[in-house]
Amino acid sequence: MATAGKVIKCKAAVAWEAGKPLSIEEVEVAPPQAMEVRVKILFTSLCHTDVYFWEAKGQTPVFPRIFGHEAGGIIESVGEGVTDVAPGDHVLPVFTGECKECAHCKSAESNMCDLLRINTDRGVMIADGKSRFSINGKPIYHFVGTSTFSEYTVMHVGCVAKINPQAPLDKVCVLSCGISTGLGASINVAKPPKGSTVAVFGLGAVGLAAAEGARIAGASRIIGVDLNPSRFEEARKFGCTEFVNPKDHNKPVQEVLAEMTNGGVDRSVECTGNINAMIQAFECVHDGWGVAVLVGVPHKDAEFKTHPMNFLNERTLKGTFFGNYKPRTDLPNVVELYMKKNRSCNSAWLCTGAGGGEVHHAQRPVRRDQQGVRPDGQGGGHPLHHPHGELDFAV
Amino acid sequence: MATAGKVIKCKAAVAWEAGKPLSIEEVEVAPPQAMEVRVKILFTSLCHTDVYFWEAKGQTPVFPRIFGHEAGGIIESVGEGVTDVAPGDHVLPVFTGECKECAHCKSAESNMCDLLRINTDRGVMIADGKSRFSINGKPIYHFVGTSTFSEYTVMHVGCVAKINPQAPLDKVCVLSCGISTGLGASINVAKPPKGSTVAVFGLGAVGLAAAEGARIAGASRIIGVDLNPSRFEEARKFGCTEFVNPKDHNKPVQEVLAEMTNGGVDRSVECTGNINAMIQAFECVHDGWGVAVLVGVPHKDAEFKTHPMNFLNERTLKGTFFGNYKPRTDLPNVVELYMKKNRSCNSAWLCTGAGGGEVHHAQRPVRRDQQGVRPDGQGGGHPLHHPHGELDFAV
Repeated sequence: MATAGKVIKCKAAVAWEAGKPLSIEEVEVAPPQAMEVRVKILFTSLCHTDVYFWEAKGQTPVFPRIFGHEAGGIIESVGEGVTDVAPGDHVLPVFTGECKECAHCKSAESNMCDLLRINTDRGVMIADGKSRFSINGKPIYHFVGTSTFSEYTVMHVGCVAKINPQAPLDKVCVLSCGISTGLGASINVAKPPKGSTVAVFGLGAVGLAAAEGARIAGASRIIGVDLNPSRFEEARKFGCTEFVNPKDHNKPVQEVLAEMTNGGVDRSVECTGNINAMIQAFECVHDGWGVAVLVGVPHKDAEFKTHPMNFLNERTLKGTFFGNYKPRTDLPNVVELYMKKNRSCNSAWLCTGAGGGEVHHAQRPVRRDQQGVRPDGQGGGHPLHHPHGELDFAV
Repeated sequence: MATAGKVIKCKAAVAWEAGKPLSIEEVEVAPPQAMEVRVKILFTSLCHTDVYFWEAKGQTPVFPRIFGHEAGGIIESVGEGVTDVAPGDHVLPVFTGECKECAHCKSAESNMCDLLRINTDRGVMIADGKSRFSINGKPIYHFVGTSTFSEYTVMHVGCVAKINPQAPLDKVCVLSCGISTGLGASINVAKPPKGSTVAVFGLGAVGLAAAEGARIAGASRIIGVDLNPSRFEEARKFGCTEFVNPKDHNKPVQEVLAEMTNGGVDRSVECTGNINAMIQAFECVHDGWGVAVLVGVPHKDAEFKTHPMNFLNERTLKGTFFGNYKPRTDLPNVVELYMKKNRSCNSAWLCTGAGGGEVHHAQRPVRRDQQGVRPDGQGGGHPLHHPHGELDFAV
């Protein structure tokens, strides 16, 4: 392309300070260096993780910064040594990468790449410790290696998944974060047998995806657990067959679920990050074969506590990160799954469909329940202790 | 046989009171009822679980009682409806049974039979709630459905495993408890990949069997962790390649192991039942793929605590009961494994070889380190908080 090797000037939504409205600025985007790619972002959606780090409550503030990590785009140019993708390829940026060289990438079980694992504190490229974004020579920092709230962004090649160019980027852009996390938690980690019973704790976007994953895997009973009953109707579309609102009962939800299922569910997936829900999700699985999977990100001071006999009675507790999907290897297949319409998300999943420069102008709240946080800091706002657990559709 | 259908008078070691020396008595053993078998015990060994319940510290005392559960014998007669075994069959009694009908028995994953799962409080047969042992008409209670400290005993057919009659009963009698527990914890549950690194916490009999299971599975580094360095030499025979004594270090053993293994072991097996060792065994496995397996039985007030991020970084924690072996289905194969000399236990494992009536007269302590507890209450004695974890050879 004519722009290859040159600095590109484009619009980006810049967060100058924690919690302050994003500002649409003209930024300079440097060409990709060795093992980097520059991507034209066509669609980006907004995840609560962006909001969480934009608020900068409880973590090191890195500003000015360009947020955004759920997106879809097209490779504009590639740096030295890049052979896996070429200009014109359709890609999903991913907040956690896959170098294909480290022990984790070489393990069939792990997706926690030593080199490119998510790092929310780093605002620069790995190669040279510098940012590729600048305004008048002043660096603007990156976010989780993606920074998709920009018309162009630079990423390590290990952080882009090349996908089917026929896939609608305005839809599949949401697959690069929470949706795959929930889907993979069920399909790759919980692995419910056909005809089994699954409990899903938390019916935000991740939980709905977990329910859908359980349905795809063949579970016949999928019990949604949430304190907010307004989510139940929506959750039916994603496979939930029954619901439990812990507020409706005077006993621990573990006991409620055990009574509903003759001793416990076969699998559970915890998508809230609340430590009590984590313990409940573990203790509600059946002895002998039950498997609980933790997905939601807990408070840094949280402590998981249970009686060890709950393990000795042959229960299993696992955690997952990004649904155990290896981003470059597996995300293309998740996109294919979507393309084959095996997933109801074709109609149910929504996407902001906003180009980078439009993020600031979004007038719609993030959450259906009207209590969400907007990137411009208006329209409500509530504490977000764990971003994934609070995810919901952007509408 | 001539004795079928009749009461048999034989010798048994009876525990009349908690902690008091066993007394060799002539007992009457009633014929087996429906779905029961009467077994002539040829060899029985002594497990700390017998001692623990004989001491009756912390659990409901059930006396007078006949202890014993690691044994080998021959079917003398069978009750109505028994078709799986016949008089003359060689069997191992098992403290936990397999009815082959319940959800657990029908699950490929569980061995925790609903009907015949270990019950240490029950001193009678399930069929009629009565004991088959008596002295002058007064009932003597059963222990975990086996009561092998008697020349004849009655068991539910679901609690005997029919084995190869060529197998030496004086050797394989130890396979019906701790040895299979440790072996199965590694082979069936931890499943270390070939070339992997395994940490074994606690080098008693169960831990040694776990080390041997790891070796059989193909682990190349097997790190024994124990506070007692006198166990290390013996443990080499069972596959341990390295040792860590937590007392030798000023930092948590998790950190010691992480430094030895570039981030953590691939698998760990906890065979002490000490809650701190359980937490260490979990936290020492590698992120991304590490699996920890809990075997040791904890104190009833113990609480397992860890930061949930240890799970979210893709670690797995599982517990096992009897090494996940289904006793009737799988023990015959464990015996075959022994017969094929795939296991070094042919020379290394020892057995008391004492017939039921001789238990009282054993003059040798249970443990090599001379601190053991004898069934006659002499020769030392130390608190046994968790029976399996303290197991060691009987010599």
